[in-house]
Amino acid sequence: MSKIVIRAGIIGGAGYTGGEAIRLLLNHPNVHLVFVHSRSNAGKPVFSVHADLLGDTDLNFTDALQDDIDVLFLCLGHGESLKFLQSTPVPNHVKVIDLSQDFRLGETVNGRSFVYGLPELQRDVIAQASNIANPGCFATGIQLGLLPLANAGLLTTVHTTGITGSTGAGQRLQETSHFTWRANNISTYKVLNHQHLKEIRRSLQQLQQGYNSPVHFVPVRGDYPRGIWVTSYLQSNLSLQEALHLYNSYYATHPFTHVSEKQIDLKQVVNTNKCLVQLEKQDDQLIIHTIEDNLLKGASGQAVQNMNLLFGLEETAGLKLKSIVF
Amino acid sequence: MSKIVIRAGIIGGAGYTGGEAIRLLLNHPNVHLVFVHSRSNAGKPVFSVHADLLGDTDLNFTDALQDDIDVLFLCLGHGESLKFLQSTPVPNHVKVIDLSQDFRLGETVNGRSFVYGLPELQRDVIAQASNIANPGCFATGIQLGLLPLANAGLLTTVHTTGITGSTGAGQRLQETSHFTWRANNISTYKVLNHQHLKEIRRSLQQLQQGYNSPVHFVPVRGDYPRGIWVTSYLQSNLSLQEALHLYNSYYATHPFTHVSEKQIDLKQVVNTNKCLVQLEKQDDQLIIHTIEDNLLKGASGQAVQNMNLLFGLEETAGLKLKSIVF
Amino acid sequence: MSKIVIRAGIIGGAGYTGGEAIRLLLNHPNVHLVFVHSRSNAGKPVFSVHADLLGDTDLNFTDALQDDIDVLFLCLGHGESLKFLQSTPVPNHVKVIDLSQDFRLGETVNGRSFVYGLPELQRDVIAQASNIANPGCFATGIQLGLLPLANAGLLTTVHTTGITGSTGAGQRLQETSHFTWRANNISTYKVLNHQHLKEIRRSLQQLQQGYNSPVHFVPVRGDYPRGIWVTSYLQSNLSLQEALHLYNSYYATHPFTHVSEKQIDLKQVVNTNKCLVQLEKQDDQLIIHTIEDNLLKGASGQAVQNMNLLFGLEETAGLKLKSIVF
Amino acid sequence: MSKIVIRAGIIGGAGYTGGEAIRLLLNHPNVHLVFVHSRSNAGKPVFSVHADLLGDTDLNFTDALQDDIDVLFLCLGHGESLKFLQSTPVPNHVKVIDLSQDFRLGETVNGRSFVYGLPELQRDVIAQASNIANPGCFATGIQLGLLPLANAGLLTTVHTTGITGSTGAGQRLQETSHFTWRANNISTYKVLNHQHLKEIRRSLQQLQQGYNSPVHFVPVRGDYPRGIWVTSYLQSNLSLQEALHLYNSYYATHPFTHVSEKQIDLKQVVNTNKCLVQLEKQDDQLIIHTIEDNLLKGASGQAVQNMNLLFGLEETAGLKLKSIVF
Repeated sequence: MSKIVIRAGIIGGAGYTGGEAIRLLLNHPNVHLVFVHSRSNAGKPVFSVHADLLGDTDLNFTDALQDDIDVLFLCLGHGESLKFLQSTPVPNHVKVIDLSQDFRLGETVNGRSFVYGLPELQRDVIAQASNIANPGCFATGIQLGLLPLANAGLLTTVHTTGITGSTGAGQRLQETSHFTWRANNISTYKVLNHQHLKEIRRSLQQLQQGYNSPVHFVPVRGDYPRGIWVTSYLQSNLSLQEALHLYNSYYATHPFTHVSEKQIDLKQVVNTNKCLVQLEKQDDQLIIHTIEDNLLKGASGQAVQNMNLLFGLEETAGLKLKSIVF
Repeated sequence: MSKIVIRAGIIGGAGYTGGEAIRLLLNHPNVHLVFVHSRSNAGKPVFSVHADLLGDTDLNFTDALQDDIDVLFLCLGHGESLKFLQSTPVPNHVKVIDLSQDFRLGETVNGRSFVYGLPELQRDVIAQASNIANPGCFATGIQLGLLPLANAGLLTTVHTTGITGSTGAGQRLQETSHFTWRANNISTYKVLNHQHLKEIRRSLQQLQQGYNSPVHFVPVRGDYPRGIWVTSYLQSNLSLQEALHLYNSYYATHPFTHVSEKQIDLKQVVNTNKCLVQLEKQDDQLIIHTIEDNLLKGASGQAVQNMNLLFGLEETAGLKLKSIVF
Repeated sequence: MSKIVIRAGIIGGAGYTGGEAIRLLLNHPNVHLVFVHSRSNAGKPVFSVHADLLGDTDLNFTDALQDDIDVLFLCLGHGESLKFLQSTPVPNHVKVIDLSQDFRLGETVNGRSFVYGLPELQRDVIAQASNIANPGCFATGIQLGLLPLANAGLLTTVHTTGITGSTGAGQRLQETSHFTWRANNISTYKVLNHQHLKEIRRSLQQLQQGYNSPVHFVPVRGDYPRGIWVTSYLQSNLSLQEALHLYNSYYATHPFTHVSEKQIDLKQVVNTNKCLVQLEKQDDQLIIHTIEDNLLKGASGQAVQNMNLLFGLEETAGLKLKSIVF
Repeated sequence: MSKIVIRAGIIGGAGYTGGEAIRLLLNHPNVHLVFVHSRSNAGKPVFSVHADLLGDTDLNFTDALQDDIDVLFLCLGHGESLKFLQSTPVPNHVKVIDLSQDFRLGETVNGRSFVYGLPELQRDVIAQASNIANPGCFATGIQLGLLPLANAGLLTTVHTTGITGSTGAGQRLQETSHFTWRANNISTYKVLNHQHLKEIRRSLQQLQQGYNSPVHFVPVRGDYPRGIWVTSYLQSNLSLQEALHLYNSYYATHPFTHVSEKQIDLKQVVNTNKCLVQLEKQDDQLIIHTIEDNLLKGASGQAVQNMNLLFGLEETAGLKLKSIVF
């Protein structure tokens, strides 16, 4: 049997998620990375921007698009994906995986409709889709802590704290990304008002119809580069054992999301596509911790996972990554 | 007029809070540091343990106590202060400031009763006291975010996240204090079950009689050495302006606690005795952020502030500290 | 053609290098990891110690050895490998790759002799060997900066600074591994007296006979977990272009060591098996920077690279690792 | 006796060294800070830029200069001090302390000549001066490690590594100051070619006439905000005891520079004006480590120390700062 080879292109290859997509696709056993598009870097070697790739690839950035691809990854800023697809003809046979938030709430463009790409929510729907709206990083971490409850119709008001590494804010230089400022520092932003709440609510309501209680979310800037920690709690009548059973059942067939019976810590998943979940019960409150790498399971890794599903590959193909651990 | 000189001793001078107490008292204009007690280091120079004090003091640790002091700081682990005072005669004229949690809930020993040393709660009572139970670090940060509301009888159910630096866990070597583990890492502990909730509830009920709603508290281990960030939110009918007015009024006469109209970040207060408070309103939720240095306003700095009050000194004497800023 | 499968065992699987060896071998396409030995953890799941492996393996630690293996990795402390091989019968057909320093200077045990496993020094000799003494982490980084000069007989007195992450000191809890101490801190140790100088000198003299000038080496403890930065400089008559040519020629066939024409920074190689080299010329001094991950190219990754060579596999098999980058 | 009060102004008050100067002068017992000049922030509260000063001062930035001051601190970028003094009339009675490198090599402007402000080199000359060229941060750390040897005529070729925190590069946003890039990262710059070598050589030759051997200096970017570590070594016939005697004698009367007999680590001096020196001997090489806070002893703290000397104050006035320690 001959090996499946997916021909892939990347738009916006100079940013963080673009770089991670390149790293994953270069090592993916079933992918040929045909081009990496970056207007500002066209003609330069990919390793001139992503210096860690020296010795790994001789590919150059391009400002031209090629049609002979099977899948196109859009690694663009919010609003930019919509503009790109409005202004650029992409052949119908090319599947699009968009990492921005432009199509996560059911938006369409030029007849293309997008499926929300959270495999733990709707793997079968994704497998039949043509275009994927890849979930947000916080949205992924928060949802993976709540999906089993929503699926059982047990969600009540949710209180969530999420802590993100600096890569979540992209590579733009700004005051809050200055090393001198951010090192050893903590701050919050968009408290109880984060834009990911919309896609989170949409998924939760998909599983638990009529769910209308608040999801309160405090986003925190952590003083480290990679990874998202989420702690949610809510009133629940489930015992810890019942909750563990619920979560283990829900995630039994999902290769990247695992329930830990021990206390978890963020670095268990950094530089991998995994999400670990830990449960606690205190009085009548069920506590759910989840951890993920915001650039992998929270962005480019999940995008490749979605590609695997779109093309009928093993879900974990190219995604068995060594964690940083330390 | 001759300058007041307080003669001070320290028990447990080799630990983190002991070291910070030494640093503050050596530079305090009204204090003569008579002795620093440490059984395990007796005879050695103080700078042999607190190496940053090389050139600042020639004091040696001692295992003997002296009676000719005015105030004794107990910088001991939880449970150890009680044992010390049970087994060691301390003259009646000596005021005791205890940094452990042993006397924060009204406990007494050998006829000594303790006043809870949170100046923003009860400065006048502290000024008349003989013995002080110095508040916990998280307890200080959380209470300073809630006292004005409690004082106005406006507290409802509170949802709190607190992030602490590694110094909060002391100098004992343990898995979660290993650099390799903790660097770039996030984890939680004692979720919704932290021991400081008791002293917090006691103070809140002192101001708002009958307050009986939950205070949910998620403690987080941050990956930096110093400082505590607290975000609390609760349902409130106050507008942001009303809340700002309430907080500004409450803290108007308190020299270390200030309300910021701009977004705050933790390093504004690290290495100082200050607490900054920031308010936000989102829908019907009032959000309160507070920041402090866990070893200063959250421990030894507040202990010296209490000493100043006990002896009628300027409240800020010896506590105008340069922040680390960066 | 059937795929080659190497049966591997690990001794000392609970430490840092043991953990990294497990991570690499679990994902290696040509390896079956037969057992992971750890006396203190026998019977427990591997993921109970290496928590990031939850979901990746159901293997348990064992205190029993099996003979039906092809290669045995010794991930033990210095001195422990010698003791192990003195007291434990290992069948002759089993090749041994030792990560300690016990056999790097030509020592033998029970008739086993060891080849120094630096592929860039002597890949062909390694390919014919039965037992490998895997180089030290600093030793690898320093040698990879000097081998091309030694090979050309151009070494003079060398001045070297090396900065290492905390994982270089292992997982034992000690004062200098306490997070509170090490965060934002710098210190040195064994200045001009590091034990790796012996194996470094041995390799240099192997290439440049009679080389007898000093190699001065200042080892620095960095405040980050992973990676080694080395800067060496020495008097040289080579122009920068000549030096670049020399280094590019020397490393042309080596898949993990690459010469960068741009300024390098440590994170380009963290979590990979690569070594990047950068050259500068200032007046009559040639400056050579090298970077590597101390646990991979400096330990377990190079051990797997040596295994690949021992068994005639592709040198990069199982070692195309995604860097952490950020 | 009435207390001396020095009236001070600051030019360039919005940057790092300007901020540190403000922090020091606000708490200085003999200083009245008359104005803080910042064109871009004129009219705004000082705490709107230096947010940690909320509650400490109500001063606003100004774009006007006042003549009724005794001393003017120039906290400007390199080249900017010269321009400022060329274009702005400063009354003759006002002493100028310049933190840039514009006047460190004997340059003059409008008849003003500058004395190099390293008190450990020439305290008496400083005390008689009208204008001070404050030394560079690396230059201070390196010189304090070499002055006693130069003074004894014992300098030979010097090999130096210096590691600096990110504040050394100022607050300008640039790639190498991006948190995501710099966290856990190491890199070098201006290797063997740093601009501070000129002022270093000038001082060394002032003490050791005819000293003409190279000082090789490898500057390293550390992944922390504050502090400089310097390790120098050189051939020396001095025993360790002789060297210790030499250094202790040289620094006996200097209140900020101390010789440690124990291994030092950077955080002993961070957030203080101190410099600690540690010596080692290995074979015929004398090794000297020095540590300082680059913004204090390496910039604004030393500037205030120079002010104290200029005006006959206690050298340590306003500079007994609590270290961050942890």
